[in-house]
Amino acid sequence: MNVDVLRLDHRRVRDARITTHVCLTARAFGASKVILSGDEDKKIMENIRDVVKRWGGDFEIEYIKNWDKFIEEWKNFGGEVVHLTMYGEAVQKITGNIRESPNDKLVIVGGSRVPSKVYQDADWNVSVTNQPHSEVSALSIFLHTLLEGKEYEIDFSNSELRVIPTAHGKQVETRKKPHK
Amino acid sequence: MNVDVLRLDHRRVRDARITTHVCLTARAFGASKVILSGDEDKKIMENIRDVVKRWGGDFEIEYIKNWDKFIEEWKNFGGEVVHLTMYGEAVQKITGNIRESPNDKLVIVGGSRVPSKVYQDADWNVSVTNQPHSEVSALSIFLHTLLEGKEYEIDFSNSELRVIPTAHGKQVETRKKPHK
Repeated sequence: MNVDVLRLDHRRVRDARITTHVCLTARAFGASKVILSGDEDKKIMENIRDVVKRWGGDFEIEYIKNWDKFIEEWKNFGGEVVHLTMYGEAVQKITGNIRESPNDKLVIVGGSRVPSKVYQDADWNVSVTNQPHSEVSALSIFLHTLLEGKEYEIDFSNSELRVIPTAHGKQVETRKKPHK
Repeated sequence: MNVDVLRLDHRRVRDARITTHVCLTARAFGASKVILSGDEDKKIMENIRDVVKRWGGDFEIEYIKNWDKFIEEWKNFGGEVVHLTMYGEAVQKITGNIRESPNDKLVIVGGSRVPSKVYQDADWNVSVTNQPHSEVSALSIFLHTLLEGKEYEIDFSNSELRVIPTAHGKQVETRKKPHK
């Protein structure tokens, strides 16, 4: 099962850091790609591609203007849609069902105003607690629950940098990246 | 075991939204209090208190100037310190040990530059993956792992608003708050 993340309604200045954290969380927790919608923001896309270059793996980022059509096409090609919202069904109850279906998943992470069409079109509306908190934590907990911790075993291959886990301090291994 | 969260090096404009997400994540995932350091930011503190008023529970927020002394006192009173960092030991391996010790925990969430003293003084430096992502996702995953999902059962009592989990839509119950 492939997992992509669609970030709706990105606003260039106001959302720059939160959207960056959404993208990096998607990558670290096993998604293949993030699709940004809202303002086109080349800076964020460059930053994320730079992280991929240094930290490895083959995570992708792309911009689309028409998210509505994108969701429609995703579903037409047999993909399923999970919308993260504090109003949805509890992640701890519903994620087992989502995992059972082998189809590719598009995880939608809302912006400030999510049209009601998204709630209707999603196969699942999933809440990570019903309290207000953060699309960043909601995404990490959903992916962690969906992948059952397998995100800890991802091999981010072909990286320039690798952390050696350490009790007290910082250890980073720098590797010369082979030319492609 | 009581869990508080210390946010280091908050910068008023640049970090406003990320720090707000850190605070709301701390609350939704079972911490009792967040302590902000860095710039004093009354706006964030008001916003968080307003969320507590509307969404319930008794989460607190406080500002301290001298985080160094705060950590020292926390330890002097028998509390333990967990520092979240991508350089630390893996959350999935170390959290069992942390949970076994019943002492209150202070979870430190870094800002842009964390002094090496924090790495030395922490009882545990914990990484949520060794990839760059977000202090917001790191905090949510650490608290979720520490509490083993019990955060889903927290009763946020005395709230004005309560979400009714729904498959496709939004349902919010508004309750008149009793006068204290």
